Amino acid sequence: MRGVAIVGVGQTKFGVSTETSRSLGVKALLDALDDAGTNGREIQAAYVGHYGLLDRQKGLIGHLVLSDAGITQRSPIPITRVEDACSSGAVALREAYIAVAGGFYDVAVALGVEKMTHLPTIEALTGMAQGREQDIEGVMGMNPIGIYGMKARLHMERYGTSEEQLALVAVKSYKNAASNPYAHFQKNITKEDVLNSPSISPPLHRYNFCPFSDGAAAAILVSEDLVKKYTDTPVYVAASVQKSGFFDDSGDLLTERVLGDTAVEAYEKAGISAKDVDLAEVHDASSIAEILAYEALGFCPEGEGGKFVEEGQSQIGGSTPVNASGGLTAKGHPVGATGLGQTFEAVKQLRGEAGKIQVPHPEYVLTHTMGGLYRGEECNKVVHIFKR
Amino acid sequence: MRGVAIVGVGQTKFGVSTETSRSLGVKALLDALDDAGTNGREIQAAYVGHYGLLDRQKGLIGHLVLSDAGITQRSPIPITRVEDACSSGAVALREAYIAVAGGFYDVAVALGVEKMTHLPTIEALTGMAQGREQDIEGVMGMNPIGIYGMKARLHMERYGTSEEQLALVAVKSYKNAASNPYAHFQKNITKEDVLNSPSISPPLHRYNFCPFSDGAAAAILVSEDLVKKYTDTPVYVAASVQKSGFFDDSGDLLTERVLGDTAVEAYEKAGISAKDVDLAEVHDASSIAEILAYEALGFCPEGEGGKFVEEGQSQIGGSTPVNASGGLTAKGHPVGATGLGQTFEAVKQLRGEAGKIQVPHPEYVLTHTMGGLYRGEECNKVVHIFKR
Repeated sequence: MRGVAIVGVGQTKFGVSTETSRSLGVKALLDALDDAGTNGREIQAAYVGHYGLLDRQKGLIGHLVLSDAGITQRSPIPITRVEDACSSGAVALREAYIAVAGGFYDVAVALGVEKMTHLPTIEALTGMAQGREQDIEGVMGMNPIGIYGMKARLHMERYGTSEEQLALVAVKSYKNAASNPYAHFQKNITKEDVLNSPSISPPLHRYNFCPFSDGAAAAILVSEDLVKKYTDTPVYVAASVQKSGFFDDSGDLLTERVLGDTAVEAYEKAGISAKDVDLAEVHDASSIAEILAYEALGFCPEGEGGKFVEEGQSQIGGSTPVNASGGLTAKGHPVGATGLGQTFEAVKQLRGEAGKIQVPHPEYVLTHTMGGLYRGEECNKVVHIFKR
Repeated sequence: MRGVAIVGVGQTKFGVSTETSRSLGVKALLDALDDAGTNGREIQAAYVGHYGLLDRQKGLIGHLVLSDAGITQRSPIPITRVEDACSSGAVALREAYIAVAGGFYDVAVALGVEKMTHLPTIEALTGMAQGREQDIEGVMGMNPIGIYGMKARLHMERYGTSEEQLALVAVKSYKNAASNPYAHFQKNITKEDVLNSPSISPPLHRYNFCPFSDGAAAAILVSEDLVKKYTDTPVYVAASVQKSGFFDDSGDLLTERVLGDTAVEAYEKAGISAKDVDLAEVHDASSIAEILAYEALGFCPEGEGGKFVEEGQSQIGGSTPVNASGGLTAKGHPVGATGLGQTFEAVKQLRGEAGKIQVPHPEYVLTHTMGGLYRGEECNKVVHIFKR
């Protein structure tokens, strides 16, 4: 297997857009091509992350975007949509990585795109709920929002985590997002704002959850021998690990065993440990998910995620900055685009081009997404580690 | 890149089923595991072709099937859904092939599954229509059924193809299907039956089109060095080529340039030419699609597809048997399963295990699917060549 580098990234602003998913996808792709200094003629394959169920264009979006961007106007290439619910973008990156590392293509694009805000909230929620197991969990009306509430309550009871600590996760995310021009939300909030916002799934409030967002992001991947043709600042994929499964038979909602195993394997592949991670962009669909990610990814001991955020360890400048971008909570969560939006942030950070949200001299950036709901857990876990 | 062999296949009967997609998927997967002589413990990854829009379980189906089959009950593995409309199953096979050939996994499963017949026809049609470009073709109400009619009419006017010749494609498919226990339809029809069946998209009649079907199929892929552990009758993937694009700027509905290019590249990779193909399972969503496939795949000269079927060249025993299984027309078309159903047929034929539809001593079997509708064409083309 060959080394693979990312030599170009593009991203639209995440948020409420009047454009179509197709138009957003074209913008992100053209920006990524510009960033890689290519007109796209060398692109040999495309993998497209798109959840699609909220979109008028439910499938085929990659074919339209690659055509509109001029690529398949020149010559046909393989275009494949991948879908693993909220982790679709990360899986698109991973499949592009596998195909380039394995020698099938020298240059490939991973694209993620989603349009969500045009729907009334109840319809968007209904569409997102299709990403769960339907026979039992669907009939019971289980959904990630309710499960996050249960996890938060259990974490509070077992480890003494407080609502204030959960609020501080959101405060940090909004603070970072306010300095990220690509972020959905561009305002600072206080701990009181979080605690006074409507209760959604007790003990979690509205500000403890990510919004629906529109957006797109893209990355150009090349084999290591081609890097010099494109850039002096390549970012390498040091690890790409995906595991689909669920917690062990204990049925303990706080056992993030699968995510932990995914991270351990990713650290092994990258030849690093958790303490070497200079920045993590994690799947904080809710503040409790970020706290559980601190623990499962090894940034702090089990049960100490609340303390970790309270001490400022996950802030820019802390021991392990987490979600410098604002994360899903405040940068936004256009489902299919999210994993590639994390990739965009990782690449910009490793190049030292992240502006006001730059962490100091990062060498390793970790990204983490999850998707699907089965047995009370987001059952697809994806961890990437990028290095300079 | 390593050689990759298929060491196990499974398939449900295609047709009208009262089972869920999940249940169908489990059956096909367990049959494939049995066929490979494994309990599934070695499976390291799964790629799942599922169109999903007609299904209550729109996503996540792979996660449920792999769990119910006991695989992720043991240990998490990466499970990725791929979707390229009617070519989803073939793309799942292709991604599994890429990952094994590239060295990422030693043993992987490709699974395809679809449940369609539970919906009223108009709802199934509406669901399938989502696989097209929506901004222009959707607004105009273009769909493959209408386009197949236009293609058939043009082929008749340009090359003198007759309605009788189009009917003979369906007659052959039904004849073969009647000897295939996995086929949706189990009856012989006559040329008159086709011509007297309701006109759907003139000059095409109901029997000139594939049905909606339920079904699932699976294949177990291993790296070449592991073959002996599993089987004495491996089937190798000699070529896997995918091209997504559209006909040239002439706008000629009969220009199957992309499919032709896909086939040429596949023949090059396999080191063969069209005349070496002992059996082709092609995407005959309509009889005209099969005639165009004869020509694009090089089994007969351009314009002579009608004559080719009339002379019996595509029958079992002809110069190039096509759709010995009954094809989409009569074996059925459970969208996400179709490409892997073709794989099942190819493997059974190459092993000499195809029973009453066995072609004599095949060495090379070609499969072909298409998916999506953009610019009046099914824009994703996938060709695989399998060898003994």
